[in-house]
Amino acid sequence: MIRPRPPLSDRVAVVGIGETRYTRHGGSERSEFDLCCEAVLRAAEDAGIEPTEIDGFCSFANERQEPVVLQQALGMPELSFSNIVWGAGGGGASGAVMNAALALHAGLCNYVVVYRSICQGQFERFGHYRVRPWGSQWMAPYGLMSPAQMVALTFRRYLHEQDATADHLAEVAMVCREHAQRNPRAVYYGRPLTLEQYQASRLIADPFRAADCCLETDGACALILTTRDRARDLRTQPVRVLAAAQASGPGWGQGPMGSHNMPLEDYASVNSRLLASKLFTMADLTPQDIDVAQIYDAFTGIVTMALEDFGLCPRGTAPAFIAAGGLRWPDGALPTNTSGGLLSESYLQGLNLVIEGVRQMRGESTAQVTGAHTCLVTSGGANAHKSALILAAEGA
Amino acid sequence: MIRPRPPLSDRVAVVGIGETRYTRHGGSERSEFDLCCEAVLRAAEDAGIEPTEIDGFCSFANERQEPVVLQQALGMPELSFSNIVWGAGGGGASGAVMNAALALHAGLCNYVVVYRSICQGQFERFGHYRVRPWGSQWMAPYGLMSPAQMVALTFRRYLHEQDATADHLAEVAMVCREHAQRNPRAVYYGRPLTLEQYQASRLIADPFRAADCCLETDGACALILTTRDRARDLRTQPVRVLAAAQASGPGWGQGPMGSHNMPLEDYASVNSRLLASKLFTMADLTPQDIDVAQIYDAFTGIVTMALEDFGLCPRGTAPAFIAAGGLRWPDGALPTNTSGGLLSESYLQGLNLVIEGVRQMRGESTAQVTGAHTCLVTSGGANAHKSALILAAEGA
Repeated sequence: MIRPRPPLSDRVAVVGIGETRYTRHGGSERSEFDLCCEAVLRAAEDAGIEPTEIDGFCSFANERQEPVVLQQALGMPELSFSNIVWGAGGGGASGAVMNAALALHAGLCNYVVVYRSICQGQFERFGHYRVRPWGSQWMAPYGLMSPAQMVALTFRRYLHEQDATADHLAEVAMVCREHAQRNPRAVYYGRPLTLEQYQASRLIADPFRAADCCLETDGACALILTTRDRARDLRTQPVRVLAAAQASGPGWGQGPMGSHNMPLEDYASVNSRLLASKLFTMADLTPQDIDVAQIYDAFTGIVTMALEDFGLCPRGTAPAFIAAGGLRWPDGALPTNTSGGLLSESYLQGLNLVIEGVRQMRGESTAQVTGAHTCLVTSGGANAHKSALILAAEGA
Repeated sequence: MIRPRPPLSDRVAVVGIGETRYTRHGGSERSEFDLCCEAVLRAAEDAGIEPTEIDGFCSFANERQEPVVLQQALGMPELSFSNIVWGAGGGGASGAVMNAALALHAGLCNYVVVYRSICQGQFERFGHYRVRPWGSQWMAPYGLMSPAQMVALTFRRYLHEQDATADHLAEVAMVCREHAQRNPRAVYYGRPLTLEQYQASRLIADPFRAADCCLETDGACALILTTRDRARDLRTQPVRVLAAAQASGPGWGQGPMGSHNMPLEDYASVNSRLLASKLFTMADLTPQDIDVAQIYDAFTGIVTMALEDFGLCPRGTAPAFIAAGGLRWPDGALPTNTSGGLLSESYLQGLNLVIEGVRQMRGESTAQVTGAHTCLVTSGGANAHKSALILAAEGA
């Protein structure tokens, strides 16, 4: 039973999804732009619209394929909207969907595509050190250089505060890998992960091993959104965007990524409690109403902390919840990252998690949760500015 | 008399403006970030709100000051929205205001700041050649490298089609310079331009002389927007955003900047007719209802073509309209760029034109148009993706 909600809630729907083949970094000989066009064309085909009907583009994280160039390649007569989430890295995937929803809700356009195309084999590899526009000068001199290190520092504090061990991380990695065994799109399809293999995985930044770190991949994916009214006339089963939010805070001690001078009460978390509060208020739901989750898993420990920040587990209980199989399909209390996630499907910086959320709401996942009506999607780990979505099936 | 309009129309207001001192490139010894903070703090003071009440940021054109860093510097407990117009360069200034309006209209935040901070003395100079992410490979080998060259090519075609001469360009440059003589913020304040000086100005890209090209400056500016309801409780006279739109098209032959393979019927223009149509429809106004204009004047010839694209002059008549003094304050039919514009006030990539529009609607311009109720602001010249605003005074 759904009551009236704030203006943006439940106004738009995802009506098409498209993905290229996902490969390990360096696996694509095609350009990011070529992959991007393929993903958009597949999404348009899925939605049953002509590519020329698209009139808006949104993305995040310094996406390199420029809207007007894509407009030209697709032969679109009109482009009426294009923006990009600002300064949030992977924290922006759901935010890009939110931006698309804003434009559609205000009547500025008819069909907005949200896309992300990444060839880590052709540009930088995210896992490596790079000078960031802000913050590197404070961290690099102390050896704090890669995302894995930054999140590890935060997560170590979490373990200390909760008097917990890192043992449950193996389960996060193995759950994602197991879900990937059902998903032929996953880069790790056909490559299961045993506990022994996990434990033999080399240490990257204590407590994270290589198997705790997401893939570095080449690929592209895209979603098409429209208003719920217009969605009714399309052939694809629409998936409703019940809520979409973006937030940085509470507290303001954080930098763009992994700054470590926050007040301790906010530090040992993914700092998403404000975001969660905005999101569930908009959806008029509680965390207990969520049937399936796609949680940003750039590193396993992010999942632990996010489960608590989003209220899916009470504070301090996520390690036990995970260890007890809570994330597993089909029998866990909250099947999570049912495509294999960023750890085992692909690292499209979180946009592929949104696509898996859509599949779940359409009943088309390769690890389909029976009767799932609502899906939480979170975007961002170490990023200060994060975003999230609640998707819902038609008729829920 | 204003009738009901589409959803985004007339929902939000500009309630604060702030600017640093504007200097020639290299004139600031302070960082872009420092200047940015000053502009935002001035805007908050102008609006009569605490900086900590700000909860959203929008910008355009690869603005370098990251939202979460600014959040930290300003001590903002919550940031709920930040995006940036994508791939439009100076074509995005009004688009950033549009994005702020979308977030406010949807209830996602309370006070959104739109800002731009540029120190051309510390980073690249826009007038020089730089490799662009797309298109340079097709143009640079032929010597087509700077924005002045790209616009000149288009404008030469315009003159050919209209059987016009470039004589009227001197008037565009002199009008802007004369308006700047009343505006102490203008970089060219105290430096009038005579026809002899204009004619002696060196040729940069035929028909553009140095005096036809905008300034390269250091400085920052910011606007604060909120809903019209909330604006009523503030001390500053609100300025209504009657319409805000973004568009690329009709036609899809254009690249991000200055691609020259468009159909001829669209080529010799600033390709803003689709944008103008969206804008006036949203405002439920006609071009004849516009009292004062701030037209993107990176190069004088853009003003000529924009007057026609936006329906302010019938096709082919802008040169005569300009030559007859149509842009002059106070007696021209349409006083334009009343602060001195990008040619003579500052080049904040067009955001300073929005600020001058706000001043006009508040009755505070140094070249105030008596009784002006509506102001058109255009953003973008050679950029394929452009945007524009119609501002209105309270009570209009």
